[in-house]
Amino acid sequence: MNFSKEFTSAILIIGNEILSGRTVDKNTSFIAKWLGELGISVEEVRIIPDKENLIIKSVNELRKKYQYVFTTGGIGPTHDDITSESMAKAFRRKYDYNKEAYSLLQKYYENSDFNESRKKMAKMPEGASLIYNENGSAPAFSIENVFVLPGIPSYVETMLPQLKKILKIGKKIISLSFDASLIRESTISEALEKIQNNYPEIDIGSYPYSNKEKGFGTVLVMRSTEQDKIIACKDEIEKMITSFKK
Amino acid sequence: MNFSKEFTSAILIIGNEILSGRTVDKNTSFIAKWLGELGISVEEVRIIPDKENLIIKSVNELRKKYQYVFTTGGIGPTHDDITSESMAKAFRRKYDYNKEAYSLLQKYYENSDFNESRKKMAKMPEGASLIYNENGSAPAFSIENVFVLPGIPSYVETMLPQLKKILKIGKKIISLSFDASLIRESTISEALEKIQNNYPEIDIGSYPYSNKEKGFGTVLVMRSTEQDKIIACKDEIEKMITSFKK
Repeated sequence: MNFSKEFTSAILIIGNEILSGRTVDKNTSFIAKWLGELGISVEEVRIIPDKENLIIKSVNELRKKYQYVFTTGGIGPTHDDITSESMAKAFRRKYDYNKEAYSLLQKYYENSDFNESRKKMAKMPEGASLIYNENGSAPAFSIENVFVLPGIPSYVETMLPQLKKILKIGKKIISLSFDASLIRESTISEALEKIQNNYPEIDIGSYPYSNKEKGFGTVLVMRSTEQDKIIACKDEIEKMITSFKK
Repeated sequence: MNFSKEFTSAILIIGNEILSGRTVDKNTSFIAKWLGELGISVEEVRIIPDKENLIIKSVNELRKKYQYVFTTGGIGPTHDDITSESMAKAFRRKYDYNKEAYSLLQKYYENSDFNESRKKMAKMPEGASLIYNENGSAPAFSIENVFVLPGIPSYVETMLPQLKKILKIGKKIISLSFDASLIRESTISEALEKIQNNYPEIDIGSYPYSNKEKGFGTVLVMRSTEQDKIIACKDEIEKMITSFKK
């Protein structure tokens, strides 16, 4: 499955907590599945620390290489939240208060202290477009082909649907899977390769497992934008597996 | 916390199943925590598909930039397992049977068919050193400063301890955390920044949460190789939080 550049994307996860191993990254899986539904392929993910030079370099590399870039993390109020300022530097734009974001936050904090840290969340690269938070608190933003999202997974889930009207939508990526229980992947891999060669428009993945609940086996996953071919391919795979079970 | 290059590393996760969102990557968190114990910092993670040109380019960039690179995935017997051959190309070495790996696999499969796919798992870049699998099945390998591991997390966990005697070990990274319940990060962020400025050798991370079980709050995480300073820093943070709770 090779996508033309117009339907490709990369994800840039920004945050020391993922790199230290403290937190398992859940945003990649959620964003990738959501993009798959829209026919947009995730070609690369990078996870980097809250370091300005790395953020600038990574986003500049990825935004040239892929149609869209989705970043998560580092847009909160604390000293380690440096994503917005780094984006302004990457795009060589002024980093200043976004008027609309400032008003939203002023309203959100009207009954508490609208302090400097809270104001900081309204600072963005000049010309950024807002991505709203459901509860009216700090918005995220996009700038050109880069979507700068928060690190908290529940916020990401709230914000992504707003992007549907902005992104250029391709053919939905269909995913089918087949659990070949009690079959080792090294038993079927030659037969499977032949099927893969017959279906170049389908990505066939082979994932062995071995655990106490299910015993051992191999899950075969087919991904493609071609509905007819993926069904035909699944039939062939099922027949092949059956022949090994005899 | 800035590490000299000799104690830095990168992780390269190879596999379509992570990029499609089907599988949440657990190897990064496990490897990063294990390396932290050895005083080795993970500076960057990349997740890429099973595509030869991307594997070659990524590993060549990362192995120059960091002291160690750990890859996971793509060393099994199927058509989509192209990591070993890609590594041979990245290092411009011959890709052929490793004699020791071949014998191990021959023995492992002595009562079943030692077919071409199973033999493929003995193919490696010339000069690779084996990393053994606990149960005697397919080994992983290292070549220069790159450690080429399988994608299955339980195998990674078995294999990592073998690397302890090879890696250059630094000062253990100590991590302490403090749960400031019912405190919003935007309330304390100015005070927290002052503490961070007083302790440049400590990375202080601030992670807000909001959920049904615990309500809301902010977890503060301190990471450093300096035991005395991290304890002093935690005391200051606790005092600061208490002052906001009054």
